[in-house]
Amino acid sequence: MGDPAGIGPEVIIKALADREIRSLARYCIYGLNEILTYEADGQEIDPFWYRVQHDSARTHRAITENVVVLDFDEYDGMIHVLRQPSKSGGLASKAFVEEAIADAMLPADPAHHPRKLDAIVTGPISKQSWHMAGFNWPGHTELLTHRTRTKRSVMAFVSPRLRVALATNHEPLNKLRDLITIGRVFDPIDLGHQACLDLGIEAPRLAVCGFNPHAGEGGQFGDEEKRLIEPAIEVARNNGINVTGPYPADTVFIDAASGKYDLIVALYHDQGLIPVKLLGWDKAVNWTLGLPIIRTSPDHGTAFDIAGKNKASEGSMVASIQLATQLATRRLAAAAPPEAAPAEESEPAA
Amino acid sequence: MGDPAGIGPEVIIKALADREIRSLARYCIYGLNEILTYEADGQEIDPFWYRVQHDSARTHRAITENVVVLDFDEYDGMIHVLRQPSKSGGLASKAFVEEAIADAMLPADPAHHPRKLDAIVTGPISKQSWHMAGFNWPGHTELLTHRTRTKRSVMAFVSPRLRVALATNHEPLNKLRDLITIGRVFDPIDLGHQACLDLGIEAPRLAVCGFNPHAGEGGQFGDEEKRLIEPAIEVARNNGINVTGPYPADTVFIDAASGKYDLIVALYHDQGLIPVKLLGWDKAVNWTLGLPIIRTSPDHGTAFDIAGKNKASEGSMVASIQLATQLATRRLAAAAPPEAAPAEESEPAA
Repeated sequence: MGDPAGIGPEVIIKALADREIRSLARYCIYGLNEILTYEADGQEIDPFWYRVQHDSARTHRAITENVVVLDFDEYDGMIHVLRQPSKSGGLASKAFVEEAIADAMLPADPAHHPRKLDAIVTGPISKQSWHMAGFNWPGHTELLTHRTRTKRSVMAFVSPRLRVALATNHEPLNKLRDLITIGRVFDPIDLGHQACLDLGIEAPRLAVCGFNPHAGEGGQFGDEEKRLIEPAIEVARNNGINVTGPYPADTVFIDAASGKYDLIVALYHDQGLIPVKLLGWDKAVNWTLGLPIIRTSPDHGTAFDIAGKNKASEGSMVASIQLATQLATRRLAAAAPPEAAPAEESEPAA
Repeated sequence: MGDPAGIGPEVIIKALADREIRSLARYCIYGLNEILTYEADGQEIDPFWYRVQHDSARTHRAITENVVVLDFDEYDGMIHVLRQPSKSGGLASKAFVEEAIADAMLPADPAHHPRKLDAIVTGPISKQSWHMAGFNWPGHTELLTHRTRTKRSVMAFVSPRLRVALATNHEPLNKLRDLITIGRVFDPIDLGHQACLDLGIEAPRLAVCGFNPHAGEGGQFGDEEKRLIEPAIEVARNNGINVTGPYPADTVFIDAASGKYDLIVALYHDQGLIPVKLLGWDKAVNWTLGLPIIRTSPDHGTAFDIAGKNKASEGSMVASIQLATQLATRRLAAAAPPEAAPAEESEPAA
């Protein structure tokens, strides 16, 4: 659900009110039933879910309903802090995602646990709320990386016209000089390449942004291109990845949007997010690469300024659900035991 | 002309081949007649200009032709280094712009010198060519600022959907921490406001980008917003400028493109240029604010990879000429001595 005071609950209700979206998968909402009921009321939508207390024994037995709300009603009262960051919003949204991660990490085999998740879609949290609650994770992504004991994770964005993977996430711009290394540039190339394959792109073409204006203009505006980016590209090419660059960041996204590249590696948040949001507003999905579990998220924040006003668009939440479903379906198909070979092959023609 | 080996000559010919563009103003091309003739040939265009050697006495007497090429034929032979940076390209393109600046700085009054220019449109130079020729100016903008003894200049971009002014130009990203000051943020606000007025926008609305991801998210991802950007905005507001921010850079351009702001202040090159080029490809104009002379330029580089192949689009050059003409016309009208007052006012009714 993300922060109950933000637009997360609203976009979840709007997205799942669509029967076509509900038919894509089975859903568990980790959050507050009271808020969801309030949002559905406001939108004149009849509740379409089955409520279960999140820590009740009932959750350990199979539930056949298509949409289940795992209710954290010990955090009730959030209804009164709508539209702003709060300690209780931080505590609640942290509890939701922790439990979802634990359920996603349940073993898939041999007996499928009733709480096992095939993918997580996270609603927007408020980093200020988390801070007020005493949690200093910069975001969901870093928490997920840590909890799943992932060595390399990368924040990526998928929109209809652009796919972008980031070398750094929520870092102060002036800290980049300490953070950008050959490895930090290599990871989004490597994981971005794998992501394209996961999306069914057979021969992915990747490009990397320059760090400095005009990609350093031959070393005149900085040397990170020669010192860090070119070596990372070289390593990736030696590993069989079709990646080129570094290219000036102010033109490479134009080439990508026109179909020349399947994925762009950006070196910092705004370099990648400005083009993603400008071209993909309301359709962009945040996808965390490198995790053992599938995790997507809308690309917007809590938007406290419009929360509770029935003004939020569910577009990015819908796209996040669609991408998570697509990826989980492919992954489950790949993991399924091969079907018994067809009869005509197992019995060679005599 | 910019670097004779780049696409400058081609886009000049293509732009001025249009009679409607030629009718906007009178033009002097500082460059190489040989290259222009070659380009016109390639495009099957009959020469439409009058050639004069740039340093001949003829240039000090009135010329009635609408398009004049001030030929620097001492730099001939450039035809043989097409498509790459070169020392001779650096020497030539530096000489062209130096002479244009000198002519633009000629006094307008009392006797209008035949070489006086009302505006300069610069073709793209190669910083590598300049470097090879021993010139270490990062670009035209910095040279123009110095030659015109300008204390504050700002690089701005005008495109149909966005206007952007930059706090820093061609700086290595890791140097920004030493460069961004309250004054460096105030200048593009102040000069950007004036630029909007010069364009005829009566009550300009400006917004400033954050420096860090999510504009620092309340100080969690950096403090430049609180230390430097908010104070600069405060000073500007106290001076009567309608400016707000800092806003997250990945969403403020969406608001600007939808008409909420007349001009956005970006803090570094790629932050401003990524959205300008993505939304205004082939229509964006680089405009140097704060100079005593009017100077515009296409937003593209020398594009050596397509030079000499008749593939370049003249769109941005045309837009640069149109903006320069618009600004010069307004400036000349404002500077003109007031017309004699109408008779009915000078002779009060008896």
